[in-house]
Amino acid sequence: MAQRLIVIGGDAAGMSAASQARRRQGPDDLEIVAFERGHFTSYSSCGIPYWISGLVSERDQLITRDPETFRTQFHIDVRMRHEVTAIDLGRREVVARDLEGGGEVRERFDTLMYATGALPIQPDWARTDAGGVFGVQTLDDGAALRAWLDADPKPRRAVVVGGGYIGVEMAEAMIQRGLSVTLVERAEQPMSTVDPDMAELVTDAMHGLGIQIRTGLSVIGLEERNGRVSAVVTTEGPIPADVVVLGLGVRPNVGLAEAAGLPIGPSGAIRVDRRMRVPGVEDVWAAGDCVESLHRVSGLPVHVPLGTHANKQGRVAGINIGGGYATFAGVIGTAVTKVCDLEVGRTGLRERDAVASGFEFISVIAQSTNRAGYYPGSRPMTVKLIAEKPGGRLLGAQIVGWSEAAKRIDPLAVALWNEMTVDDMTALDLGYAPPFAPAWDPVLIAARKAVDALAAADR
Amino acid sequence: MAQRLIVIGGDAAGMSAASQARRRQGPDDLEIVAFERGHFTSYSSCGIPYWISGLVSERDQLITRDPETFRTQFHIDVRMRHEVTAIDLGRREVVARDLEGGGEVRERFDTLMYATGALPIQPDWARTDAGGVFGVQTLDDGAALRAWLDADPKPRRAVVVGGGYIGVEMAEAMIQRGLSVTLVERAEQPMSTVDPDMAELVTDAMHGLGIQIRTGLSVIGLEERNGRVSAVVTTEGPIPADVVVLGLGVRPNVGLAEAAGLPIGPSGAIRVDRRMRVPGVEDVWAAGDCVESLHRVSGLPVHVPLGTHANKQGRVAGINIGGGYATFAGVIGTAVTKVCDLEVGRTGLRERDAVASGFEFISVIAQSTNRAGYYPGSRPMTVKLIAEKPGGRLLGAQIVGWSEAAKRIDPLAVALWNEMTVDDMTALDLGYAPPFAPAWDPVLIAARKAVDALAAADR
Repeated sequence: MAQRLIVIGGDAAGMSAASQARRRQGPDDLEIVAFERGHFTSYSSCGIPYWISGLVSERDQLITRDPETFRTQFHIDVRMRHEVTAIDLGRREVVARDLEGGGEVRERFDTLMYATGALPIQPDWARTDAGGVFGVQTLDDGAALRAWLDADPKPRRAVVVGGGYIGVEMAEAMIQRGLSVTLVERAEQPMSTVDPDMAELVTDAMHGLGIQIRTGLSVIGLEERNGRVSAVVTTEGPIPADVVVLGLGVRPNVGLAEAAGLPIGPSGAIRVDRRMRVPGVEDVWAAGDCVESLHRVSGLPVHVPLGTHANKQGRVAGINIGGGYATFAGVIGTAVTKVCDLEVGRTGLRERDAVASGFEFISVIAQSTNRAGYYPGSRPMTVKLIAEKPGGRLLGAQIVGWSEAAKRIDPLAVALWNEMTVDDMTALDLGYAPPFAPAWDPVLIAARKAVDALAAADR
Repeated sequence: MAQRLIVIGGDAAGMSAASQARRRQGPDDLEIVAFERGHFTSYSSCGIPYWISGLVSERDQLITRDPETFRTQFHIDVRMRHEVTAIDLGRREVVARDLEGGGEVRERFDTLMYATGALPIQPDWARTDAGGVFGVQTLDDGAALRAWLDADPKPRRAVVVGGGYIGVEMAEAMIQRGLSVTLVERAEQPMSTVDPDMAELVTDAMHGLGIQIRTGLSVIGLEERNGRVSAVVTTEGPIPADVVVLGLGVRPNVGLAEAAGLPIGPSGAIRVDRRMRVPGVEDVWAAGDCVESLHRVSGLPVHVPLGTHANKQGRVAGINIGGGYATFAGVIGTAVTKVCDLEVGRTGLRERDAVASGFEFISVIAQSTNRAGYYPGSRPMTVKLIAEKPGGRLLGAQIVGWSEAAKRIDPLAVALWNEMTVDDMTALDLGYAPPFAPAWDPVLIAARKAVDALAAADR
């Protein structure tokens, strides 16, 4: 008799796991049922800001694989608009509610794949019946926001709440749609994903785009008129708004897991072992934005919701479920983004992370250019390195530059992954030609500066 | 009494060494004399094709530091237009000819820095009094070629001989200047710096630009008319030409070194140890395009003339000469170039190198895109990986793509440097966001494909 795998959540992690399991075991050996409460499988939520800005024209461009493809090509029984409401580990069953047809189903499993993703953080003040307040996590969110922006009366003033990646990307999207934009951030600076000295470069660029940035204040409520939002009320007074976009980050969606007694780690996400197995529970696996990962630099468990990790972890889980062998090696916090032409990359620890992890360190900032100085299109590029003192091991890196800058974080990410010292890094053989780099690559210039800083700290 | 350092050659390696030595020892402790036979110090010869194309407008943009700066800021006695004609290791003297003033000087040294660079390979047929035949190694070469292209009668037909980096870049430059261009290459394909399957992508792009490519034929002579070149004569007949550009590569400039008895390695370049010291000779150092380097993958000595290595090696030599400690870690053959919008990157061994070095290996080619498929400006990107069989250690990588592709070789270069296996590489935490990469970075897709190929080869 065939074994039965139930997958909860039909996005990146869940469907990667299902596909990989299927590659190793045919339908006669493994029956796969996937429950997805939404309308879509496997789509790029990271792409939503670009769809809203209009840069990506069609919603379906963001969909990697639709349910029908999974059904016909992968023989996966995908049940859309089904929300799993309970996991019964004793009976090895899940309970799912049919959100459209109504009613409930109970389904037996031998193996469970938990991939419920993350939920946007939604403060109390955002719970409103007034129109014009949007998250941007799902395609449905995106569709609703697009419809609001296109409908009459056309919104003119946008307030984006939260200055992380999504907030910054959405601020850019609103500007591109021709709205006036105010970004509200509780901290002293947006882009806290990099250190303040680097974030300042991003803030300057956003000002240059005409984005109003209000920092150090909290949103405490909304004002509405005729069923439409009219202002965001902050600790420093109201800010008029025809549309409000929430970019306050996400939290792991672990309600079901907690109720079923699955272990939750210190990050608030589900604990998993290297093979993406939930420890202490038989044949239950988890992956994606609902689990925590080992940070290879700090050695601590962290919650880093990102599509690329979800894909990798889902693949690892699926290989193992299918009888193969794979492990997930952890994360180092690499991330890239842009605000119009300004690109930002980061990897490893920020200064505050290094402090919190107990490292002693030096940090340096090196100014250079993306191309040879004389080559057309040469633009400034700033590289920051954080290195352990006295050993010199790279702990973190950040890059801000005007073009061809963000992905320059990748060689630094690989150096960090391999625990290189900044001294070793000065010797790296990186690509050089005038259209692509100065004779001393910005990464090498920064490494040299870090070596000097370590020597000075040693004296 | 001050020690005396004599530097032969005033370009990247020589002047990096001189500057670094000066950083550590002041003029009272170390007198530095540098002989340069040309008109310029420290300039970017890699930039010459872009100056000729007109992309870089002024010659002086290519000059990093002029002789006067070295004299006044670094207290280096730079003697321009002085060609060193002999090294007397017994007497610790060099003999230099003043190419402009005439006469000869003898100068004593305690320490000698040999940095004579490389010489363009110039076949017998290219030795002609006819106008219109040019190398592109020095700024003087570039100035002469520019003058020829600007003078009446305006050349219309260019023949570029040699299909390496310089040949390809010069073919592009000639096209941009509005000439019709034929590239002549003795081998079956230009761009032999990558494997034939990847070179084919470059060849296709060059055809698309309107560059005529003639392969498998040798140049055996020139035809001239009224003192001007009129055709290149090949083993397959003449090709009309109003201007001929030589891009046949370079050889280490070791004549003086050989005459003085310095050791020459199997690559034909000067042997040096890790600190850039010439072994077996007291206080003689060498760096740059005239020395050979350890290839970290093959373990063999290689001659890789490239400005970035010259800078690094000169710096290492100068630190050591100045009493510090530094070593040069070797090269892995990373290089990047472009033909209009087509970008090419490579690192490590090509298939033929892997065969020659005795490795067993698999190779894979993966197709992907530089950005998320749905993001505007997403373009094809092809990644080739060569991995040791059965261990899976990365031996080499090549990338061809239409934009934002060449520098994607850098994370692969760092992985190679750290002797990662392709299996380890599938776990790498590289930057992901839709404007910069698909959720599976092309590098990771290629690594996964290589893992599959190794598994298949194992069966």
